[in-house]
Amino acid sequence: MPLPTMLTERLGLNHPIIQAPMAGGGDSPALVAAVSEAGGIGVFGAAYLAPAQIAEAAKSIRERTRRPFGLNLFSPLPTPERPKDFAPAIARLAPYYVELGLPPPEVPAPPTYSFDDQFAAVLESGAAMFSFTFAPVPSQTIAAAKAKGMVVAGTATTVEEAVALEKLGVDAVVAQGSEAGGHRGSFAQPFEAAMIGTMALVPQIVDAVRVPVIASGGIMDGRGIAAAFALGASAVQMGTAFLTCDEAGASDAYKEKIMASREHETRITRAFSGRPARGIVNRVMTEVGDEVPGFPLQNALTRPMRTAAGKAGRTEYLSLWAGQGLRLARRQMAGELVARLVAETRATISRIGN
Amino acid sequence: MPLPTMLTERLGLNHPIIQAPMAGGGDSPALVAAVSEAGGIGVFGAAYLAPAQIAEAAKSIRERTRRPFGLNLFSPLPTPERPKDFAPAIARLAPYYVELGLPPPEVPAPPTYSFDDQFAAVLESGAAMFSFTFAPVPSQTIAAAKAKGMVVAGTATTVEEAVALEKLGVDAVVAQGSEAGGHRGSFAQPFEAAMIGTMALVPQIVDAVRVPVIASGGIMDGRGIAAAFALGASAVQMGTAFLTCDEAGASDAYKEKIMASREHETRITRAFSGRPARGIVNRVMTEVGDEVPGFPLQNALTRPMRTAAGKAGRTEYLSLWAGQGLRLARRQMAGELVARLVAETRATISRIGN
Repeated sequence: MPLPTMLTERLGLNHPIIQAPMAGGGDSPALVAAVSEAGGIGVFGAAYLAPAQIAEAAKSIRERTRRPFGLNLFSPLPTPERPKDFAPAIARLAPYYVELGLPPPEVPAPPTYSFDDQFAAVLESGAAMFSFTFAPVPSQTIAAAKAKGMVVAGTATTVEEAVALEKLGVDAVVAQGSEAGGHRGSFAQPFEAAMIGTMALVPQIVDAVRVPVIASGGIMDGRGIAAAFALGASAVQMGTAFLTCDEAGASDAYKEKIMASREHETRITRAFSGRPARGIVNRVMTEVGDEVPGFPLQNALTRPMRTAAGKAGRTEYLSLWAGQGLRLARRQMAGELVARLVAETRATISRIGN
Repeated sequence: MPLPTMLTERLGLNHPIIQAPMAGGGDSPALVAAVSEAGGIGVFGAAYLAPAQIAEAAKSIRERTRRPFGLNLFSPLPTPERPKDFAPAIARLAPYYVELGLPPPEVPAPPTYSFDDQFAAVLESGAAMFSFTFAPVPSQTIAAAKAKGMVVAGTATTVEEAVALEKLGVDAVVAQGSEAGGHRGSFAQPFEAAMIGTMALVPQIVDAVRVPVIASGGIMDGRGIAAAFALGASAVQMGTAFLTCDEAGASDAYKEKIMASREHETRITRAFSGRPARGIVNRVMTEVGDEVPGFPLQNALTRPMRTAAGKAGRTEYLSLWAGQGLRLARRQMAGELVARLVAETRATISRIGN
C-alpha cells in the first residue's frame, strides 16, 4: 500500500479507494455510504440534481454513515448552441419513445438552477470531498470548498489538464485514463487526442504535479489497484467495479448487462448526452450516432427514454456507461467489494515482492 | 519481480524485458544484441525484409551477442484488393515526392517473396524466439518453430484473440494495449473495438489463458514494469522506450521528435501503411488521411518517401510510430536503459511494499 498522503490523512481513509461518482442513477446514497463505511470513500454524482435534491441526497448519506463522503458536480460549461429547429433531433428519438409507450420528447426547457446554486448546496452538505468534471471551476469555488475543510479534486485526461488544475489550487487530480466508463473529462485537448491509456497517463501526470494523483480507468480489482500504486498514484477511483454492487442505483438489467459484456463491447458515444462518454454498445448508441445537439440538450431529450427504459429493464435504450474492465466485474455488497479489493491488493504486492 | 516462468526460463533471461520489434528501421541488429546482452531479449522486426536480408540481420545480431534473441514477422494476410487505378493514391502522395526531390511513387510490384520464404529464413536464423503480428499463423508454422526450440509468441489486442492464439499453440501471448506505438495487432475484432487500454487488457487476458502474458503498450519505465507484473504479466515488451536508445535504427530527427512530443500528440492512422498504427501526428498523417490502398500497397507507395525523409531528417514525411508514454522517453545506450529499468522496477516494488 502506498504511504499515507495528504489525501488519505485529511479524509481519514483506511483504504485509498474512491468510488467514482456516477451521476444519473448509477450510484446511490446507500452505495456511497457503504463504501465510506468500509474505509474507502464514496463520491455521489450530483451533477444532474437540483439544489434541494443534492441536500436530500447528502442527508440520506449522512443518515447512513458518519464517515467522510464526497460530492461531484459537472463544471459550468458554455451554453450549447440551441438548434434553430429541434424537430430533427426529436424525430430521430421519437421511435424509441413510441416503442416505450411514451409521449415524444419535448424541446428542453432552460435549466431552473445554475452551477452556483448546486455548489451552494454542496457547501452545506457536510461532504468531506468535492470533485468536479469537465473543466476548471472558478478559483473562488475551490477556495470556498477549501474554506469548508473539503478536499477538492479535479479530473484530468492529459498532463496539461492536470497541471492547469494544480495551478487552480486543487488538492488532488483524478487521472482519467481512456479505459474509464462514463463521460470523458477532457477540457484542454479535444477528447480524441486525450484518449490516453491509464498505464501511460498516470506516471506522466505524477511526474508533472506535486499534488496526489488518483488513478482511474480500467481498475477493477486488487491487481489494478497495486498497478496504479506502482505507477505512482496515491489512490484509485473505481466506477464500473462499484456499479454492479447491490447498493448501486443502476437497474438490475444494467448490472446484468455489465456482467455479460466483454472488454471490446464499449465505445465512446455522444448519442445519449451530447458529450463523449464510454458505454456498452447498444441499439440507441448505434442508430443515433454522434450528430446530436450539444450537452445538456441531448441529455434532456433522452432523459425520459432512459428513465423509462431503466424501470422496464430495457437496456437497448439505456446509456450503459461502463469501462473496459468488464470481464472483471463482480456482484456483491459494496463493503464486501472493498474488503476483497484490500485483500487482493495486499496479495498482489506480496506476489510481486517475492 | 515475478517468479521465473517457462518464458524466462526457456529463454534464459535475467530480466523479463523484451525489446519490441520495430520493423522498417526503428530497431537494428545492434539494438537487439545490446538488449539481449543486458539480460533482456531483443526482438528484431523482420517483417519487411527479404529472406536473404533476414539471414543477414540474424548474422549481424549473432556476431554481436551469444545471448538469445528474437525475430518477428507479420502474419500472412489476404492480398488486399488492388485499386483499378493507382493514379489517385499516387497523386495524393506526389507533392511530397516533389518536395523531397524524388520521382513519383510507382505502382507497387507484387512481392518477390512469400511469408513462407521469410519464415524459412527465420527457422535458420538461430533466433530463440519467434513472434508474429496481425493474425494467427498456420499451426504448422508454430510447430516448425517449436521443433527448432524457439519460444513462439503471438500478439493479441482482445481476450478472444489471446484465447485463439493459445489454442493455436503459442508459448506466450503479447497483450498489446491501446497505448502501444506502431501497428495494431487486431485480427478477431475490428481495431476500433480492440482499443483496450493496457490496464484493462492485461488482467482480462491473464485470467483467460494459461500461457505467460507479455504486457505491452505505454510501459516506459520501472513503474510501468512493476504495474504490468501487478496486473499478472510475466514479462513486458517495450518499443518506444528502446526507440530513443543510441543503437536504435531510427533517425536522430525521429528520436528527437519523440523526446519533444507529448502524450496527446499521437493518433492511429492508416496513412503510411494501409493498416492502423499509432504514431506522432505530422503533416502527411493529417493530409493523407485513412482512405488509402490496403496494406501492404500503401506501405510500398510511401516507402521511398519515408526512406528519403529519414535520411534527410524531415519528420513531416516519416511514419513516427510511437506509444502514448512519450514524456517518459530517455536517451541512452540500450544496456544502460535495461539496467535503469531493473533498478527502477525493484525500487517501485519496494516502495509499494512498505
